[in-house]
Amino acid sequence: MALRLALLGFGNVGQAFARLLLEKRETLQRDYGLTWTVVGIATARHSIACDQAGLDLHRALLAARAGDSLAPFHQGPALSNSLAFIQACDADVLFELTPLNAESGQPAITHMQTGLRKGQHVITANKGPIAFAYRALRDLAKGQERALRFEGTLLDGAPVFSLVSQVLPASRVLGFRGIVNSTTNFILSRMEEGLSMTDALREAQSLGITEADTDYDVDGWDAAVKTAILINVLMGGDVTPSSIQRSGIRAITTRAVMDAVRIDRRFKLLAQATQQGSGVVGMVAPAMLPTTDPLAHLRGTSNALTLITDTMGELTIVESNPGLAQTAYALLSDLIYVAREHHPAGL
Amino acid sequence: MALRLALLGFGNVGQAFARLLLEKRETLQRDYGLTWTVVGIATARHSIACDQAGLDLHRALLAARAGDSLAPFHQGPALSNSLAFIQACDADVLFELTPLNAESGQPAITHMQTGLRKGQHVITANKGPIAFAYRALRDLAKGQERALRFEGTLLDGAPVFSLVSQVLPASRVLGFRGIVNSTTNFILSRMEEGLSMTDALREAQSLGITEADTDYDVDGWDAAVKTAILINVLMGGDVTPSSIQRSGIRAITTRAVMDAVRIDRRFKLLAQATQQGSGVVGMVAPAMLPTTDPLAHLRGTSNALTLITDTMGELTIVESNPGLAQTAYALLSDLIYVAREHHPAGL
Repeated sequence: MALRLALLGFGNVGQAFARLLLEKRETLQRDYGLTWTVVGIATARHSIACDQAGLDLHRALLAARAGDSLAPFHQGPALSNSLAFIQACDADVLFELTPLNAESGQPAITHMQTGLRKGQHVITANKGPIAFAYRALRDLAKGQERALRFEGTLLDGAPVFSLVSQVLPASRVLGFRGIVNSTTNFILSRMEEGLSMTDALREAQSLGITEADTDYDVDGWDAAVKTAILINVLMGGDVTPSSIQRSGIRAITTRAVMDAVRIDRRFKLLAQATQQGSGVVGMVAPAMLPTTDPLAHLRGTSNALTLITDTMGELTIVESNPGLAQTAYALLSDLIYVAREHHPAGL
Repeated sequence: MALRLALLGFGNVGQAFARLLLEKRETLQRDYGLTWTVVGIATARHSIACDQAGLDLHRALLAARAGDSLAPFHQGPALSNSLAFIQACDADVLFELTPLNAESGQPAITHMQTGLRKGQHVITANKGPIAFAYRALRDLAKGQERALRFEGTLLDGAPVFSLVSQVLPASRVLGFRGIVNSTTNFILSRMEEGLSMTDALREAQSLGITEADTDYDVDGWDAAVKTAILINVLMGGDVTPSSIQRSGIRAITTRAVMDAVRIDRRFKLLAQATQQGSGVVGMVAPAMLPTTDPLAHLRGTSNALTLITDTMGELTIVESNPGLAQTAYALLSDLIYVAREHHPAGL
């Protein structure tokens, strides 16, 4: 089957995804009978290109890398904004790849609602909409009989949502614990080696690991947003990021981290959830883990999540030192899921 | 949809699976539209019960636990052996749960071929057929348009095959490393605490962790069989267990294990595979892992496998202290897969 794709957002993640689409073009056709055309790209600077005949993705990547506008690729009347883009580009699948708004999830929520109402499948790597509006989006997608997929929102694309929905059928997730924020894990790892938090944070920034707003990582907000997503999606909860009990790592000193190492313990920023009565309680807080705990040994930017299930007991997934390529792959795996589940006739 | 099940083998794994079927009966019906009837059970002592109207699984479990024959539940002419059982029981899904034959995989291979030729889906927790006849069985299943599933053969049911086929589409597994044998990992963990290998092995036996033939674990045969399965299924290889370079843990002393701990290292029996030219090389050998290696911290009977992929880099899955319940769940998840993929009309 042939699917027409629209990319709303063409920053690092969007471009990495475009490169992967090109790289896996033959595999997708051979193994999944899936061919694709990118019919629209909208960049952060409102440079919009739509072409129902299909854009030349390779040339679009070159233009984006050179900092050039994509406007010359556009066919048809000018489009003034993202919503006009979604309405005008006749795509089967909308990729919502705009930057995170950690306060409200907007305008990405509206983008996704617009796409779903138009009958598009929606795939995102943007945490905001899933943290703030998961239920509404899920119900809308269900009503429209369209897919809503978001594997790239968490753990740099490690496939935790597919793992539960595809691989652990008829299971219940009773709780989880994990290390879900790369920046704080990197900082704590470097502090074990004697660096100050300030220096470790600066190093993380120079490596491009951090969010634009580093407080968002250090104060545990990023982990809280992810904890809320995991609770709502995997445990049927209905919580918001602000309802997660949250402490960051700001108060932790290099001396405390190094003293912990001497007594075979490791400071980690731990995200946790457990069922309590009919609800779920989520928490993000630093923990001094004994070295017998598998999570104690996760170093650098690696992510890990231990799921506590009724069928498999404790199952842990670890993604070692992930980057953009992994998030891009999460988007690709979501696209293949859409093709398999919603367009099987074409397979 | 309604599926008729036949259980060939009703030992610990078969009974654990039967209990799980009963426990999840409502979930299967509600969430997957799947109802089941067990139409046949054949036990190791050639006590065979078939009833096309459906056996009372609860009563069969009670009888098996009491050591009673299942013959009183049988309807129809007497059946003399396993092959007659497969032919006579009109099942949609055959569960091959007989004990492992580590030399040849027989007679389980013949059981599975007979079921597939009869048009049955085949699900197994028996490593032998997959280690010795994976390609032939896979091709036969494909020709018959029937499912061949074997999630329970490895890692005590941790869903490594579904992970790759369902969750990592369009990915290539370039290699792997893992700890895939519970007994040797348990023994090495106890030797770190000062026990001799003999005492640690005796403890493992008393806990029911070991295979009947403990040499099979200690000399690395079990790990080699699993390595061959992983290579053939995940990496498209065509190897036999005997082609895996294999050293067990027999030569390792408690002193060596304890000395390693003092220099921050841990002895582990490591299963590995890497691509070499157009083929794959597999190896099972003890390794002295630095404590910076995530696999170094796997204790007791836990299993872990790190997949090296072209899309997700290194992805690790860890199953903590698994047991029969996890293997039983692997069989159930395979059954749900069969229902989803092969009988979607009924969903």
